[in-house]
Amino acid sequence: LPKKHSDSGSTIFSEMTILAQKQEAVNLSQGFPDYEIDNRLKKLLCEGTEKNFNQYAPMPGNPLLIENLIEFNKQRTIPISITKENITISPGATYGIYTALASIISFGDEVIVLEPNYDSYVPAIEMNGGKSVFVSLNDDFKVDFEALKQAIAEKSKAIIINSPHNPSGKIWKKEDWEKLSNIIEDTEIIIISDEVYDILTYDDREFYSAFHHPKLRERCFSIFSFGKMFHITGWKVGYILASPELSEAYRRVHQYLAFSVNAPAQYALAKYLEVFDRNVNIKLMQEKRDFFLNEFQNLPFTLNEKAEAGYFQILNFKNISDLSDKDFAVWLTEKAKVATIPVSAFYHDQKSTGNVRFCFAKKEETILKAIQNLKEHL
Amino acid sequence: LPKKHSDSGSTIFSEMTILAQKQEAVNLSQGFPDYEIDNRLKKLLCEGTEKNFNQYAPMPGNPLLIENLIEFNKQRTIPISITKENITISPGATYGIYTALASIISFGDEVIVLEPNYDSYVPAIEMNGGKSVFVSLNDDFKVDFEALKQAIAEKSKAIIINSPHNPSGKIWKKEDWEKLSNIIEDTEIIIISDEVYDILTYDDREFYSAFHHPKLRERCFSIFSFGKMFHITGWKVGYILASPELSEAYRRVHQYLAFSVNAPAQYALAKYLEVFDRNVNIKLMQEKRDFFLNEFQNLPFTLNEKAEAGYFQILNFKNISDLSDKDFAVWLTEKAKVATIPVSAFYHDQKSTGNVRFCFAKKEETILKAIQNLKEHL
Ligand SMILES: CSCCC(=O)C(=O)O
Ligand SMILES: CSCCC(=O)C(=O)O
Repeated sequence: LPKKHSDSGSTIFSEMTILAQKQEAVNLSQGFPDYEIDNRLKKLLCEGTEKNFNQYAPMPGNPLLIENLIEFNKQRTIPISITKENITISPGATYGIYTALASIISFGDEVIVLEPNYDSYVPAIEMNGGKSVFVSLNDDFKVDFEALKQAIAEKSKAIIINSPHNPSGKIWKKEDWEKLSNIIEDTEIIIISDEVYDILTYDDREFYSAFHHPKLRERCFSIFSFGKMFHITGWKVGYILASPELSEAYRRVHQYLAFSVNAPAQYALAKYLEVFDRNVNIKLMQEKRDFFLNEFQNLPFTLNEKAEAGYFQILNFKNISDLSDKDFAVWLTEKAKVATIPVSAFYHDQKSTGNVRFCFAKKEETILKAIQNLKEHL
Repeated sequence: LPKKHSDSGSTIFSEMTILAQKQEAVNLSQGFPDYEIDNRLKKLLCEGTEKNFNQYAPMPGNPLLIENLIEFNKQRTIPISITKENITISPGATYGIYTALASIISFGDEVIVLEPNYDSYVPAIEMNGGKSVFVSLNDDFKVDFEALKQAIAEKSKAIIINSPHNPSGKIWKKEDWEKLSNIIEDTEIIIISDEVYDILTYDDREFYSAFHHPKLRERCFSIFSFGKMFHITGWKVGYILASPELSEAYRRVHQYLAFSVNAPAQYALAKYLEVFDRNVNIKLMQEKRDFFLNEFQNLPFTLNEKAEAGYFQILNFKNISDLSDKDFAVWLTEKAKVATIPVSAFYHDQKSTGNVRFCFAKKEETILKAIQNLKEHL
């Protein structure tokens, strides 16, 4: 009998964060903010526990949170119209991706993954008895729809999409979803769409969810993260949009896996959705990206493309070193005291790309300290 | 190809809670307290978010929480000596049980389950590609070790134990663990021990963990729940003790499933362990059990045995009705306005037992309201 899951070591994010701490390096690796969160969130979390939201929330989620998410999705620049049958609250987006896969994969099913990709996808597929099939993105992180089409086989159960994309920040356009929809039209393939950076799109770019597409929304899971939206990665709350049928399949697993999600946090998020201003968050993050890029332009890294969205900027280090991505990232942490994520970590064969990923969701002083360290050592 | 998981509907706990709400019945079904939690817990949760525990906690858990759990386990009446290699924090105990199973089951493995049992075990086994093998407890909820021995086969991967037992409140004694250890001595069977009611044992009874046993601790997962310990079921935090090897296997799954656990809650729990008095909790709960039993003795239910531990009391309804457990529980909710859990729900074949389970982790006024409703209708 085949082993159910691969012998994956520690995640690259834990590994680099731990190395950063050991080396007292500036940590621009793992994607988490180091600045203060909105004070109103803190107050609301206190309010949640004080108002006795301390016992089990209903399995699909706090009803007010679900109601306010229906409204929030209606208020998007391009509205998404949903009902409570479409929403389930999850203890984080990573859990949401795993559980979506768990709810549809039968032993031996194939799941198509675009590379480079977030590091939990492949283990989550394999732990659920599935087999990963890899399709490379183009050098500019665009999808090769011809290659994607070729990868579809009889055993294809699902395709995992990630937009805005980690590590590149690339956003799927309306046409991309249309192409995807056409390719899978005659199949029963399900789309699992990791959209955790949905509201952080820059330079007035639009965000399109799989759920915006009238045909795809009938066969997709779209996974969102309050951690990324509201800069509270440690709260570990996300939500899943899915068709009523897929929501039901998801909840059948969820009810026996985590069952429900931290109740005081759900209360706080419900209330925060009533006051939160998306434009403030975008402005904050776009300024951070621009500050980062401006400071980095005097360093010998090469910028191919500005991040369109999200927390991360990829930079090329070929002018600095011939090392592999991983060796360079370790060297940079140990010698220049700046931790990044090697982009090779997003490929199943760890292939080197000459790129590292920087997290710019940081205080200006953190970025400046990184610059200073890099200037001293490069 | 076989389907990976059973087509389980909604959990009995959600079903009865929802029915109770609809029927405006007193809800003694799902196991959650309806009284105020310790104010210090509320304060500490506020403190957690205020002190900026809002970004990812380390994957195995908040270091202070782990340190304080090492101390807490050392301070048990019968000490358990552990190091940080033995502990992982989980988003609830249900998740801990699932993830322990996920980390050891290969497709086709058998897992032995004692009946009656908590309703997540079988779906968790099946979702992970395993097969459940059932062994009935005796009528007084004691283990038939001969039957257990007979059930062990070449494909047996694990045995799930639950002590204190849900629904019966029965506690495993030292000799029981010794018998178990002898039975599995020549096998590689792993023990998954659900011990979420560990600190709530009554009438001066001792709690023995699988982890107390010098041989079993090398091959077991013991799963604990802060929700049950501290009456905060909605916080969804638990912890897992396991040998270093099994902890490693567990974390390989955990890091790609939930990755980490709500950070403000972990901070609060760490600090609360420094002030918490176990005896206060036991006294509170034992008084609740006794209050419940005292009030119920004038009703036509039959008591076979007082709960030794936990949140629940089983009572027999044969003097009241010939209905099946489930039909009786529905009838009781609809007509007498008191919701319980039918004990049949803890059997894979839903076999009727003439018993229902009451949750006594409730305010006195809630118990009195239930009594009043029952008196009016029985
Ligand atoms: C769960 S740790 C990884 C955080 C993250 O999204 C990233 O760094 O890409
Ligand atoms: C997760 S809901 C079930 C709560 C519980 O432990 C019980 O009622 O037995």
